[in-house]
Amino acid sequence: MNDNENRKITDPTEHKEAMQDMQESMRAKMRAAKEKKGLIIVNTGNGKGKTTAGFGVVVRTLAHGGKAVVVQFIKSSPDAVAKLLKSDNLTWHATGGGFTWDTQDRDGDIALCEQGWALATAAMDDPEVNLVMMDELNVVLRYDYLPLERVLEKLRTKRPDLHVIITGRDAAPEVVELADLVTEMKEIKHPFAQGVKAQRGIEF
Amino acid sequence: MNDNENRKITDPTEHKEAMQDMQESMRAKMRAAKEKKGLIIVNTGNGKGKTTAGFGVVVRTLAHGGKAVVVQFIKSSPDAVAKLLKSDNLTWHATGGGFTWDTQDRDGDIALCEQGWALATAAMDDPEVNLVMMDELNVVLRYDYLPLERVLEKLRTKRPDLHVIITGRDAAPEVVELADLVTEMKEIKHPFAQGVKAQRGIEF
Repeated sequence: MNDNENRKITDPTEHKEAMQDMQESMRAKMRAAKEKKGLIIVNTGNGKGKTTAGFGVVVRTLAHGGKAVVVQFIKSSPDAVAKLLKSDNLTWHATGGGFTWDTQDRDGDIALCEQGWALATAAMDDPEVNLVMMDELNVVLRYDYLPLERVLEKLRTKRPDLHVIITGRDAAPEVVELADLVTEMKEIKHPFAQGVKAQRGIEF
Repeated sequence: MNDNENRKITDPTEHKEAMQDMQESMRAKMRAAKEKKGLIIVNTGNGKGKTTAGFGVVVRTLAHGGKAVVVQFIKSSPDAVAKLLKSDNLTWHATGGGFTWDTQDRDGDIALCEQGWALATAAMDDPEVNLVMMDELNVVLRYDYLPLERVLEKLRTKRPDLHVIITGRDAAPEVVELADLVTEMKEIKHPFAQGVKAQRGIEF
């Protein structure tokens, strides 16, 4: 986990010098990064936090007065977060039928995905919307519930200023390729493995 | 990214059978996981979403009527999220002096960390609080701004029902060892590298 090979510096003067160097390198990075554009953000991996981090970005967008639309593709009812975030600037759809292993109905799941996709594309086409989050879209694509090429085409031709968040494990390589910001949430340790059950307010 | 070695199933009947198997295995996992307890959650790694996912859990806690306290150790002013989440059940402290490479003042940073720690421990001792988030505590420990052993001792002796979230890259192995749920946010792709600058509502 420790990706920093530097030894620890405890001397205040040496610390100040090291921090000045670091500041200069951060500023150089900032200067080099000039372009402003809508990002395609992908949160994938087998760990926690893909959806939750997405919700955090939604909250940030709202906090700055922006407009956000969330489409939850797998969940049949909106996350508890939606309840708290009542805002004219937020639209929340939960179009899923529940976990695929509970519905056990491929054709039904596909029909629901098409509904979700229609809502998501309408949001992407609305020039007032700043951020569209498509929760679990990676899973939808992994099961071929929506044609990958159709989704890629929509992402390629989206408004340049629109931010998009796509979550779910097993992101398709083509989606990763198209994305600007990709994070893999990797499970290092999970309480299930230690016999601790999912808890309200934490897991759901 | 694709950690699932299964081939894709498109036949509805075969799909139903596969999902029934998966449902049974999920239920078995749930049955095995019986214990309810306050979790120590660690979000680490060099990728995005460590703090944002933490905020998402804070929102969930509030949505369920729980009480949360956030201590931001490095940030000098509360994240934009705090503005939106005004609630009697949420207390938000930003006790930092800014990025270490901007303050360039080790002794000053340490004094601020001590202030933050005092607020965090007071929150952990308050029996009404359900969740304490200590943002960037891993970084604080990585720089030896707080003694690791003191933090570990507090975590070991926390109220059993209290949830704690610790974020920041370079989590100490001892913290990971003590934690119940550890996720590594791994950077796969970052817009900086493509010359795109940090944007309001997304990065901050």
